[in-house]
Amino acid sequence: MTESTRTAEAVLARAHQRPLGRIPVLSVRPRVDCGAAPVKSVVQEEFEVSATVFREGHDAVNATLVLTAPDGTEEHRPMTLVSAGLDHWVGRACAGRTGTWSFRVEGWSDPYRTWEHDASIKVAAEVDTALMLEEGARVVERAIAEVERTPEQAQVLRDAVTALRDNTRPPMVRLEAGTSPEVEREMATRPLRDVVTPSAPVPWLVERDRALYGAWYEIFPRSEGAHQDEHGRWTSGTLRTAAQRLPAIAQMEFDVVYLTPVHPIGRVNRKGPNNTLEHTPEDPGSPYAIGSVEGGHDAIHPDLGTFADFDAFVAEAERLGLEVALDLALQCAPDHPWVKEHPEWFTTRADGSIAYAENPPKKYQDIYPLNFDNDPEGIYAAVRDVVQVWIDHGVRIFRVDNPHTKPVEFWQWLIADVAADYPDVIWLAEAFTRPAMMHTLAKVGFQQSYTYFAWRNARWELEEYLREVSGEAAAYMRPSFWPTTHDILTPYMQYGGPNAFRLRAAIAATAVPSYGIYAGYELVENVARPGAEEQIDNEKYQYKDRKWAEREPGGRKAGQTLAPYLKRLNEIRRAHPCLHWLRNLAIHHVDDENILAYSKRRTVDGRDDVIIVVANLDPHTTRESWLHLDMPALGMTWHDSFLAHDLITGDSWHWGEHNYIRLGRDTEPVHIVHVRRF
Amino acid sequence: MTESTRTAEAVLARAHQRPLGRIPVLSVRPRVDCGAAPVKSVVQEEFEVSATVFREGHDAVNATLVLTAPDGTEEHRPMTLVSAGLDHWVGRACAGRTGTWSFRVEGWSDPYRTWEHDASIKVAAEVDTALMLEEGARVVERAIAEVERTPEQAQVLRDAVTALRDNTRPPMVRLEAGTSPEVEREMATRPLRDVVTPSAPVPWLVERDRALYGAWYEIFPRSEGAHQDEHGRWTSGTLRTAAQRLPAIAQMEFDVVYLTPVHPIGRVNRKGPNNTLEHTPEDPGSPYAIGSVEGGHDAIHPDLGTFADFDAFVAEAERLGLEVALDLALQCAPDHPWVKEHPEWFTTRADGSIAYAENPPKKYQDIYPLNFDNDPEGIYAAVRDVVQVWIDHGVRIFRVDNPHTKPVEFWQWLIADVAADYPDVIWLAEAFTRPAMMHTLAKVGFQQSYTYFAWRNARWELEEYLREVSGEAAAYMRPSFWPTTHDILTPYMQYGGPNAFRLRAAIAATAVPSYGIYAGYELVENVARPGAEEQIDNEKYQYKDRKWAEREPGGRKAGQTLAPYLKRLNEIRRAHPCLHWLRNLAIHHVDDENILAYSKRRTVDGRDDVIIVVANLDPHTTRESWLHLDMPALGMTWHDSFLAHDLITGDSWHWGEHNYIRLGRDTEPVHIVHVRRF
Repeated sequence: MTESTRTAEAVLARAHQRPLGRIPVLSVRPRVDCGAAPVKSVVQEEFEVSATVFREGHDAVNATLVLTAPDGTEEHRPMTLVSAGLDHWVGRACAGRTGTWSFRVEGWSDPYRTWEHDASIKVAAEVDTALMLEEGARVVERAIAEVERTPEQAQVLRDAVTALRDNTRPPMVRLEAGTSPEVEREMATRPLRDVVTPSAPVPWLVERDRALYGAWYEIFPRSEGAHQDEHGRWTSGTLRTAAQRLPAIAQMEFDVVYLTPVHPIGRVNRKGPNNTLEHTPEDPGSPYAIGSVEGGHDAIHPDLGTFADFDAFVAEAERLGLEVALDLALQCAPDHPWVKEHPEWFTTRADGSIAYAENPPKKYQDIYPLNFDNDPEGIYAAVRDVVQVWIDHGVRIFRVDNPHTKPVEFWQWLIADVAADYPDVIWLAEAFTRPAMMHTLAKVGFQQSYTYFAWRNARWELEEYLREVSGEAAAYMRPSFWPTTHDILTPYMQYGGPNAFRLRAAIAATAVPSYGIYAGYELVENVARPGAEEQIDNEKYQYKDRKWAEREPGGRKAGQTLAPYLKRLNEIRRAHPCLHWLRNLAIHHVDDENILAYSKRRTVDGRDDVIIVVANLDPHTTRESWLHLDMPALGMTWHDSFLAHDLITGDSWHWGEHNYIRLGRDTEPVHIVHVRRF
Repeated sequence: MTESTRTAEAVLARAHQRPLGRIPVLSVRPRVDCGAAPVKSVVQEEFEVSATVFREGHDAVNATLVLTAPDGTEEHRPMTLVSAGLDHWVGRACAGRTGTWSFRVEGWSDPYRTWEHDASIKVAAEVDTALMLEEGARVVERAIAEVERTPEQAQVLRDAVTALRDNTRPPMVRLEAGTSPEVEREMATRPLRDVVTPSAPVPWLVERDRALYGAWYEIFPRSEGAHQDEHGRWTSGTLRTAAQRLPAIAQMEFDVVYLTPVHPIGRVNRKGPNNTLEHTPEDPGSPYAIGSVEGGHDAIHPDLGTFADFDAFVAEAERLGLEVALDLALQCAPDHPWVKEHPEWFTTRADGSIAYAENPPKKYQDIYPLNFDNDPEGIYAAVRDVVQVWIDHGVRIFRVDNPHTKPVEFWQWLIADVAADYPDVIWLAEAFTRPAMMHTLAKVGFQQSYTYFAWRNARWELEEYLREVSGEAAAYMRPSFWPTTHDILTPYMQYGGPNAFRLRAAIAATAVPSYGIYAGYELVENVARPGAEEQIDNEKYQYKDRKWAEREPGGRKAGQTLAPYLKRLNEIRRAHPCLHWLRNLAIHHVDDENILAYSKRRTVDGRDDVIIVVANLDPHTTRESWLHLDMPALGMTWHDSFLAHDLITGDSWHWGEHNYIRLGRDTEPVHIVHVRRF
């Protein structure tokens, strides 16, 4: 190394060292993969930021959380040392509007607190008294001179300086004047900060509320209004008849209506009922086998109607306060227009044929998967165009089918590209796959993800999973809990009866802020195709007329529906802001290991909103047990008591730390308790 | 966003997304603070590198560990999928020479394994047989064309292509020819890699062996050769007399002799014996109160001799195979030359005086701490000059006193700056402070750190601590275990008698590769100053004549020394390469919770070197119990047995998974067992 190139930077770079800075600020959390992706929140959502901040020697160190808005304006928030031994500091972050924010932690030397610590000991011990008081006056003088304040704020400090130097008063009185609560507050609010050392900024994406919070309801639009004539011949439902179902969905207080694909369905190798290889001309095929001579992903199935019908559906949903989510299923039927126009977008085999989807030795001959590696630019642009068509027709939410079978970097680009123009667009990943892929899809931009919830039924499984999704992963992944989908009907749901349906809906609706219900859940549709964990006569391959009217008052099956229960769950969700957040979950102990208990807490305008959920996970038995509440997690002390008001039954009890509970098929499977203080 | 700036890069940057790449490669470990500091190893030290690597869809993914030497040459090492569910891959890294290396993980699509997986299922099921075999031939042809191989290596693949296309043979025979062990091995060694996607390079510093491995012996040079006359008057030892102690230290097979500061000692406010404030002109003062009219950190105390004497000491040490470590204690006595020349390097108080070291209300009036914030450049340069003086006199190891009272960024710069010219210099941090500081000092460059070992005495404490220091932290921090120092004499050592001294030395010497002994340990010096956890008549404040000759054969106290035990420990260390590494530790279970058991294993030239240590932590009682060995951690199967040869006693036993043990004051407190296979 020559002298001329021997800068500190060069010396450090050569040693593979990044400059540390004057005050070490390390382990800033949350952060996603060293800042490769942003941490996420929605507007007004609070979350904890922590860091390890320390300094050499004995002087006082302090830390500030700095929030930077998209326009560059900054907000400073004080941080608190929560573990002195571990030098662990925490603060609370929260953004007032959407956009690409960032935050950083600044470590700094705190001359006032250093002086206050030393002076309090030494003046009391009569060591260096005069010197300590004068040094205090000088620190406060610096605070006046160097930090911006109003005249009133400065006066508090000026009075302290005068008192510290007032030789006519006893030393302890002068010390107290320099360390009074008023002075301490002013010095904490507008501190004198030396050698301020910032961490790297942490990228932070703030999205609209629906990215975190929403109740979804899934329909196959062709089923809504579908009916059979006396010969068993089906007439398809249409977007117009499906729109007639919207008031009922809105009345149950769902927020989002999700439509399975609405595009033309392939005729080549079309699947028959129950996923059979043979089909008759009557069979409508799977809406996930997309494309025919009638068009591809940018077209509407003629049976469903026209773009005008689609627009009318969206308008009616909007009128009722519902957002429309559309399925994006990126695969093609053999007769999809792209197959002819762009054979290079698929995989050509050694014999010149195009490769079907396969999971050897199984073949899915009604579907050609896209091959993104032959012409990525062409496919990227085509998919972007497809998405634009639906955005132009009012769609702002896409539910993505099997995103884990397409390159992750494609989603990263697509979501970012759409966000550049439409930052309000939300993507839900149907990532029923291994954890690394599920989490990475969330990191690269999906606002929400389906989860393993459907397969977590034992208490220990649910506790572990709730801790996982509401813990560190909540910085980037927002879980959506679905008790069933058109593809999923677990043994628990097959055999648990109506109680299982109530129970799993209640947990989904309250444990996390986003959840979804697949149409027919109200009717406890729990019969599986033998050997499969999905419904028999799956709606994917045939029409389903659920005869909703029969369940209405006066109908043949009046009252045989969980719709009022779902409505009640959604009412509770809307009324309680604590249920709109994810990271505010706490688990409580119940002696009976079949009973799960958790709570959510949020402070709104200085008032606590707290909900406690207690669920008997055994759908077959009524169980009595004891619930032991973690009172501080509820914002109370251990000896507090409160009025526990069950929002399902309307019952109220007097609860404290230890409470008797009784839940099950004889009563209700789940308490949803609102905490009311006396 | 205008069309012209709408590149993929711009779109991703705007969304706070760093491009992911075609094949996600995440969570590469080890890595220190997102690459802010290098991971460390010494030459030939192996460590595991892991990553999460996965891809979309069903095609086979694979991973390569790429090691890049300082000159840019690369070595490719295959990685292994150890958890398919978690997409967790591991490989082994190891560097052949010192310098600033890096490594990265490359994820890639594996067309051969994709084909092999599909073909094995489909050909057996007679699905697409001809097509699958032809596609295999094409993949292998690509492998021949695209990857460099010798003619012999290529021939293996050419034969496979021919066989795959040989219509005269049955399909299963053709398939087997394409998937034979020879073909698989060739395809694994020189694979055909598609869409290769590298992780960011991880900075990696490779240092000389002594950075990780060494047995240290600490002396106060003025004590070695010091003696009292009949009137009680002391004559100081000198560097020449201290050099006469070196053969004994070398004979105990220590590697490093560490000298406390050798500089002039301040006369102002000099401390008396046992840290008293009064001193007589006879008192030599603390060598840590550095500087007087005779000079500062770049001078030698006249009582000790001259630079020529120092050079002679270093030369004698070198002749005996010992390295010299020198103390670097960056504080000044009030009469240090810097105080006059550079009052701005210290803190001036409101009354114009220079601030003493304080821990209010305690004052350390013999010491002025440096204030790095007034003139950092001046102090940096001055300290660098001091270090250069000692480097020029042959010192390559510095033991840094209280590094946690100086800015961490100063050490980061100093160590890097010295390394630019003297990459063989090693720094040991006396960082007896909180974990964040201790770990950060290691990250910014200290090769070694003192640890909390002295205060970890119960089994659960030692197990937890051994797991911590040999786990993730081993990527950057190398612990040095010291049972005592001149500042530390824990109650365990005060009250445990000679057994405690044997025990703690044995654990320190075998659990981690670096450990240290403070002179006098052989003599079981365990009397504390009342109320303190350090020795009475601490050598810091007075001379100590240990009359080594009396312990020699024929002497008055012949045999009353642990020197032979320490020598045996060091012999064992030198003979067993497994004890030279840190990350190769495994804990084993013993029924008696007072007995600790661990092992170390290293494969050298294909042969296992394995040591098992079993230590009865109760110095007062002989205990019998059962040892349950984790046999795979020893490189054996659960039903294996072996000859357990105790390197302390020479005893041998026949051991397997479960073994009876008996240890304590009646026998030896520690087994150090060499595993010998039958």
